[in-house]
Amino acid sequence: MDLNADLGESFGSWTMGDDAAMFPLVTSASVACGLHAGDPVTMLDTCRAAYELDVRVGAHLGYPDLAGFGLRAMDMTFDDLFGAVLYQLGALDGVAHAVGASVDYVKVHGGLYDRTIHDAEQASAVVAAVQAYDPGLPLLGLEGSALVELAREAGNPVFHEAFADRAYLPDGTLVPHLDEESVIEDPDEIVERALRLALKGEVTATDGSVVRLTPHSLCLHGDAPGSVAVAAAVRSALERAGVELAPFA
Amino acid sequence: MDLNADLGESFGSWTMGDDAAMFPLVTSASVACGLHAGDPVTMLDTCRAAYELDVRVGAHLGYPDLAGFGLRAMDMTFDDLFGAVLYQLGALDGVAHAVGASVDYVKVHGGLYDRTIHDAEQASAVVAAVQAYDPGLPLLGLEGSALVELAREAGNPVFHEAFADRAYLPDGTLVPHLDEESVIEDPDEIVERALRLALKGEVTATDGSVVRLTPHSLCLHGDAPGSVAVAAAVRSALERAGVELAPFA
Amino acid sequence: MDLNADLGESFGSWTMGDDAAMFPLVTSASVACGLHAGDPVTMLDTCRAAYELDVRVGAHLGYPDLAGFGLRAMDMTFDDLFGAVLYQLGALDGVAHAVGASVDYVKVHGGLYDRTIHDAEQASAVVAAVQAYDPGLPLLGLEGSALVELAREAGNPVFHEAFADRAYLPDGTLVPHLDEESVIEDPDEIVERALRLALKGEVTATDGSVVRLTPHSLCLHGDAPGSVAVAAAVRSALERAGVELAPFA
Amino acid sequence: MDLNADLGESFGSWTMGDDAAMFPLVTSASVACGLHAGDPVTMLDTCRAAYELDVRVGAHLGYPDLAGFGLRAMDMTFDDLFGAVLYQLGALDGVAHAVGASVDYVKVHGGLYDRTIHDAEQASAVVAAVQAYDPGLPLLGLEGSALVELAREAGNPVFHEAFADRAYLPDGTLVPHLDEESVIEDPDEIVERALRLALKGEVTATDGSVVRLTPHSLCLHGDAPGSVAVAAAVRSALERAGVELAPFA
Repeated sequence: MDLNADLGESFGSWTMGDDAAMFPLVTSASVACGLHAGDPVTMLDTCRAAYELDVRVGAHLGYPDLAGFGLRAMDMTFDDLFGAVLYQLGALDGVAHAVGASVDYVKVHGGLYDRTIHDAEQASAVVAAVQAYDPGLPLLGLEGSALVELAREAGNPVFHEAFADRAYLPDGTLVPHLDEESVIEDPDEIVERALRLALKGEVTATDGSVVRLTPHSLCLHGDAPGSVAVAAAVRSALERAGVELAPFA
Repeated sequence: MDLNADLGESFGSWTMGDDAAMFPLVTSASVACGLHAGDPVTMLDTCRAAYELDVRVGAHLGYPDLAGFGLRAMDMTFDDLFGAVLYQLGALDGVAHAVGASVDYVKVHGGLYDRTIHDAEQASAVVAAVQAYDPGLPLLGLEGSALVELAREAGNPVFHEAFADRAYLPDGTLVPHLDEESVIEDPDEIVERALRLALKGEVTATDGSVVRLTPHSLCLHGDAPGSVAVAAAVRSALERAGVELAPFA
Repeated sequence: MDLNADLGESFGSWTMGDDAAMFPLVTSASVACGLHAGDPVTMLDTCRAAYELDVRVGAHLGYPDLAGFGLRAMDMTFDDLFGAVLYQLGALDGVAHAVGASVDYVKVHGGLYDRTIHDAEQASAVVAAVQAYDPGLPLLGLEGSALVELAREAGNPVFHEAFADRAYLPDGTLVPHLDEESVIEDPDEIVERALRLALKGEVTATDGSVVRLTPHSLCLHGDAPGSVAVAAAVRSALERAGVELAPFA
Repeated sequence: MDLNADLGESFGSWTMGDDAAMFPLVTSASVACGLHAGDPVTMLDTCRAAYELDVRVGAHLGYPDLAGFGLRAMDMTFDDLFGAVLYQLGALDGVAHAVGASVDYVKVHGGLYDRTIHDAEQASAVVAAVQAYDPGLPLLGLEGSALVELAREAGNPVFHEAFADRAYLPDGTLVPHLDEESVIEDPDEIVERALRLALKGEVTATDGSVVRLTPHSLCLHGDAPGSVAVAAAVRSALERAGVELAPFA
């Protein structure tokens, strides 16, 4: 099982999250590429830390919207999104290369994550750009999403991420962020769900039904109060349960 | 002799210059990378045109200042500039790669061009980033500038550009842009200076003295009224004089 | 009848449209406020020209998206949009004040224009911000849109704009921009439609039916090839027909 | 004596400083206006808090450089800076107005602060813009700086700020930020210097000499670890010493 987190989300003088604490907990780091977060120096520092700790580097692709942190959906055309993905992939690769690292996988962020669950046009723009950049580049995404399906059809290696701290609907999709029950906050419950996802590929949906998933990575969060401790507890519990933690890429 | 121009300087809905008219005239295109001008789609279109016309692609590196078009000097630290150069190199390479092209050389733009004539710290940040990206990547710059000297010392292939439409000081540097006599506007004089630079490596400075240069490329401009016609006249005159036009890279 | 145009849409070194040619043709100028287009110097120059020519100044409110020119819909929250409207109103007023002008009305732009035709939440955020800024500030908008209805209910003076060069649906709304038949390009037809709108308040919809409108302003465009000439022809025809041209504000 | 702090420096999803803790300690808040920090919602929240706590609102004017937090000097022209100041003043006033507040004074930030200590052209652009906006608007600045002198000559009410936690040179200017001895970190020494500045208008310079100043405001900092506690200690000590704390504006 891989453990991934969104890192390198600081921007200029503004810090976000506790990357130093999160790096030892993960096997893959999805790194912001400057359009929704991240700046060249932050990207350099994040890639250097990943390289030194043998953590894989993912290009965390977002909408070009610093003011909105890439969280709000944008009606980008196929061409604009195709270009924006290539731009971000290249920029992160250029920076990573300078510290001995490279882009090992891609993942989409925020509004683009939500949008490409169902929006085939935006999902296909992302897939086409990844294909044009490197047809063998793995994509980490939500099982069952349009993005994951289109990437698989295109021939990209595809890996699924699951969330121990997010509520699931019976169809295996996530409860939307705006819903107040979208996030699970009880640390014990998060650890328990992480174990069940890793060991059995199961999670209980909001209606009590059991959803079956095939997760290759669990997404950990480090940007809320207390979340680093929960992430550490999840990792620790997985290790104690004998789950082998290793990057998917 | 190479002929270069700054192309791909549009941004979003705003167009700059007449790239379609300039592309057939040049052998190298310095392409904006999104920080002072250019956007992913413009970068894609520009790299595609360059590839189809067998024109070399240069990364035109600028300060992160869209509002100022990268023209005003900025006190960037070594680290910030180092990161910004890697970011731009990678971004353009990523986009170029998708259309079969690649970054063939680097050139600095505007305020960074002016600053790195004398500022050894900013020049060394650019050179260090180019070295970290690709030690064999050629740099096109102003003969005698700190940037060109530092790149040469670092081992980068270095090529000189000269300007047929800019006034020179006796020491071989350019009359600053703010000076009203900095630009030569008479088309016949520009053609004559281009020929003399290409054939004899000479240009007459503002005090009447003759400056000796070893130019590998002449920089053509296509963004002012009438400038495309002048660029075409320069190319035509060089061809008639038997100057072989070919990319330096 | 008022004649309005979107002016001041240049940004930094990039020029858009021919404002010098359009200013003598209009009675109201909707001026970009820096978030989708416009910069402080362009705003100053545009307000100064408006003041000198006795043209009214409108705050042309857009999404914060320079790269997309404010054309693409964005999922902004009520609070974010409320703040963005106040910010733009204040910024333009501050600049206008320095040259003796002031913000005389508001109009929304691009993606926000399209969105607030039907989206009551975004429309209400715009109206609430205008109310908070100045309850008596007139709003220029599309007849029948959610924005116009909500502004009217809130007590703002509301004025309707109509388009002689846009195709109308039978319900009085515009054919969306993406539809290839959305724009009318024949100059004679545009002039004829302008006259009929001004004199009879009528326009023929795409299905041949006649839509009745109560326009207070016609929107002229100056940013496409030949569009300035068409705008001049419209104004000239209206004057010959005895239509009194005067600002609504 | 006034106590001021730089507040409202968050941007989008990124938080800076602990404004909630600092607000009760100050009598004046210099609020970022969106060009170097701040966004419309942050500006709204900050102005609302200031209004409710009877704290004065200053427009904290910076260079248009979010990536650099306005800290690095920029070669802005007179016109560009004139426009940028009007833009920021208007934007903050528009937002402040909506919550019952208004811009009570201006102060410059970061690179613009450092630059306008000596650079008469940039200082005069700031003063000209403030004059054009409101000739009676007070300016808070560094005693002896070009900005303060030019504002005084122009007729603006001018007030001096002093720093209990910054080292002074014998001529009354500050030790530059890059110097490692520029900041005083010992809490007791900061409190002692604050008292001496407030009670005697004196501060000991780096060479041991005594500099005489006429401060109207002390600048408190809340963005470093422990700095809120120091700010609280300063306020408490001033109150115990019988210094009347009140806004200068």
